[in-house]
Amino acid sequence: MTHESIAPDGARYAVPSAAEIDAAFERIAQRAKGQRVVAVQGLGFVGAAVATAIASARDAAGKPRYFVIGTDLATPEAFWKIAKINAGDMPIECSDVEFAAALRDAATSTANLAATSSPRAYELAETIVVDVHLDVLDRTVSSAAEVAINRAGFENAIRAIGRSMNADALVLVETTVPFGASERIVLPILREERERRGITAPVRLAHVYERVMPGPNYLRSIRGFWRTFAGIDAESAERARAFLDSFTDTQNFPARQLEQPAASEFAKILENSYRSANIAFMHEWTLLAERVGIDLWSVVDSIRVRKGTHDNMRYPGFGVGGYCLTKDSLLAAWSARNLFQVEAGLDVTMNALRINHLMPLHTLHLLQELAGGDLSGKRVLVCGISYLPDLSDTRNSPTEIFVDELLRLGAEVTAHDPCVPVWSERPNVKLASDPASAFAEADAIVFAVPHRAYRALETSSIPAARWIVDANNILDDTKATTLHRAGSRILGVGKGHWRARGLHLSE
Amino acid sequence: MTHESIAPDGARYAVPSAAEIDAAFERIAQRAKGQRVVAVQGLGFVGAAVATAIASARDAAGKPRYFVIGTDLATPEAFWKIAKINAGDMPIECSDVEFAAALRDAATSTANLAATSSPRAYELAETIVVDVHLDVLDRTVSSAAEVAINRAGFENAIRAIGRSMNADALVLVETTVPFGASERIVLPILREERERRGITAPVRLAHVYERVMPGPNYLRSIRGFWRTFAGIDAESAERARAFLDSFTDTQNFPARQLEQPAASEFAKILENSYRSANIAFMHEWTLLAERVGIDLWSVVDSIRVRKGTHDNMRYPGFGVGGYCLTKDSLLAAWSARNLFQVEAGLDVTMNALRINHLMPLHTLHLLQELAGGDLSGKRVLVCGISYLPDLSDTRNSPTEIFVDELLRLGAEVTAHDPCVPVWSERPNVKLASDPASAFAEADAIVFAVPHRAYRALETSSIPAARWIVDANNILDDTKATTLHRAGSRILGVGKGHWRARGLHLSE
Repeated sequence: MTHESIAPDGARYAVPSAAEIDAAFERIAQRAKGQRVVAVQGLGFVGAAVATAIASARDAAGKPRYFVIGTDLATPEAFWKIAKINAGDMPIECSDVEFAAALRDAATSTANLAATSSPRAYELAETIVVDVHLDVLDRTVSSAAEVAINRAGFENAIRAIGRSMNADALVLVETTVPFGASERIVLPILREERERRGITAPVRLAHVYERVMPGPNYLRSIRGFWRTFAGIDAESAERARAFLDSFTDTQNFPARQLEQPAASEFAKILENSYRSANIAFMHEWTLLAERVGIDLWSVVDSIRVRKGTHDNMRYPGFGVGGYCLTKDSLLAAWSARNLFQVEAGLDVTMNALRINHLMPLHTLHLLQELAGGDLSGKRVLVCGISYLPDLSDTRNSPTEIFVDELLRLGAEVTAHDPCVPVWSERPNVKLASDPASAFAEADAIVFAVPHRAYRALETSSIPAARWIVDANNILDDTKATTLHRAGSRILGVGKGHWRARGLHLSE
Repeated sequence: MTHESIAPDGARYAVPSAAEIDAAFERIAQRAKGQRVVAVQGLGFVGAAVATAIASARDAAGKPRYFVIGTDLATPEAFWKIAKINAGDMPIECSDVEFAAALRDAATSTANLAATSSPRAYELAETIVVDVHLDVLDRTVSSAAEVAINRAGFENAIRAIGRSMNADALVLVETTVPFGASERIVLPILREERERRGITAPVRLAHVYERVMPGPNYLRSIRGFWRTFAGIDAESAERARAFLDSFTDTQNFPARQLEQPAASEFAKILENSYRSANIAFMHEWTLLAERVGIDLWSVVDSIRVRKGTHDNMRYPGFGVGGYCLTKDSLLAAWSARNLFQVEAGLDVTMNALRINHLMPLHTLHLLQELAGGDLSGKRVLVCGISYLPDLSDTRNSPTEIFVDELLRLGAEVTAHDPCVPVWSERPNVKLASDPASAFAEADAIVFAVPHRAYRALETSSIPAARWIVDANNILDDTKATTLHRAGSRILGVGKGHWRARGLHLSE
């Protein structure tokens, strides 16, 4: 039976047989001969970029430092990534042209980047970078005790490394893991598999994390940004540092070493939890500002001038999405209970996750207020699906939560996003290709994501919908007033002054 | 009956009679003749510095722009401030030598700064700056509904202005007030008093806030830092802006105008609440790091390299003190309920205040753990009283909370602080003048505040107390290990790795 692996862009690839995988790997091994090999396990958003960054590293003579073998599974869900990379194509949707060019170059002309599902890649590698997923099963749990993770998938990936890895190879965990995972999950598995193979040499293992920035500087954010790392012993740490020095800009962004991998893992989770908590903090001030007639957007602008102490204050908004901020705190809660057997105690942090998860419903409440409560049968156009402006990434987008609730309430939902031609997470939601015609048919327009295209809209091109909710400062005061005069009733997240001026009432 | 007013430094002043006040004011009025007069009401931490900054302003020809009259009450609690300023002496304990010199110069040689308790000062002023206290009655309340403020004291101060002010004067509220207070408390009082006097001209009223920084650059932080302001009408706003331009460095730190005074008042409270919430967030990660053996101090160091998004992450610590962060959020809660009749809903923010208030008790728990639970009769030396390192300010210091609880548990408490010769809030607590001899007599040493003097201590000068708790990274790992070898048992806030290494156990 032949399986097919279908990429998000619709491209179809036959999942290869074991013999085909072996044959393809032999060709890769031939190409790799005589070169220093790095294996990157997991070719998702981080792995694909890291593999490309490592393949792009050059020595003083301008020669590639490494032959990079990316690995992923020969499954319908994952194989297309291998096929894409071997064809020199991007396995992720990303606006970074430098990344796309570097990947194509490495896979096709320099030819020092290849992908495979064969675990024999680990035999050849002096360094194995782990970039596999380690996700929580449910991001909406409300207590630390309820958090569950896909531990088995992660453990299988590590086991595959242990079964094939070269005795002296360094394993570098780059995945965001529950703190303690390198020493308490990865290390025992590697030891067990290596002992089975009669390997007595000590395991070399370190954790290092990236701080990749979605958007047009994606690859650059892998190479030119601060890294934090820690090894299980001095040699592991030294090798991790040397490896970072070989493909990232540690001259300008010195890597910081912590005492043990758990500290590095803890740091990654903490920094994302901090961001999440700062967003949640602003939500209740958003609600208050709306109640008392204050424009919170200009207030935040005035506070952010304080560099170094207040310039990261968050603006009001629609909600939080993405892969990291919506789950990383949960990894800490899981770790405390399951790897250290202590109380997690992260009440503020867990509460922040809950607040952020419910945040899109505030925009829904504003819409309900305008509609007099009942949204059943109302035609609602939601403008913005991705979780960041001007990007196509729809992972855990707050629009999902918003639209699900709208549908539950019986609304007729159409979505639009200039960056999202296909909404893979909600294939049944109708997408408008052209906002102008969609505007004309809608009872309500909700501006959810501040894409440039929405901010640039002239009021004349927005036929007066009955109700408009601006969740992300997409309309300025002048536009809001103009639309109100033209017959729309308008509310905005954090826009207490619009309410004070009566823009939510009929003219 | 003659009352005495006693300054914190022990200097004693007879509170003057009404006739003496009048006579002194006449001399001030003579000196002020022909000059533009600014009155500054309230000569506390902000008012004294603002008055000095305004008196220091010079025009293009190098001449003082203003004659400044500071006002405060002729009461035993306040009159000494007037006496100090008129003598050219600082009315507050402050390490800023530039501030001290500027005040002396303005009060004595330029002689364009004087202080009085006569409300007739407001008759002369073209601008009246309000810097009186507006405090909450209890900083430890646990719900928004319980917040109470000293409204009467504030209203009396405003009433005094309304009774005497020049019809055209601008009133500039600089006090941190519940948002809405300028328009909903100050304005009605001024209108009422002016109507009584037959004044029909519109009130000119604005709110502006400072962001004064305790420490050696105190005066500079008044003049050279961003300001936010808003007027009740366009003319009030314009005059507020012009006034700021005349004595602060708005060239380099442009003042930002908001829509209405409530927005400016809201902004001030929000920015301090943000700080408070960020501190509270870190507290639960501190507890977790200690449980799982991680050095949170180095973790935070590694995260703070991310400029603009994470460089304001707080370190673990002993607690939060000062006048602002321990109360400003409560003003918002009060305002929502009492000035706007809406739910405050500031759950995250109120929770942060509670966490911060209890934070010093965590250090106490560490001490109890070392002592096996019972602190009764134990001699505890607390190193550090002020709420910031290398400063003398003891307002709402977390050491207060810590020492109160220690005493309740029956410990024999001695405190020491190189910057605090007299602890006015806790006059009955024994102060050690020399830490060295105090060390020798203590069962336990608690390092609470990271004064330079403590960080510079050699381990040889710390005779091995049985128990040491380091709440603020005062000891590094080497010192802690040395002290442990010498027989001390040690724990530290955020120092999970010390516990993992067994420094809390007997050698």
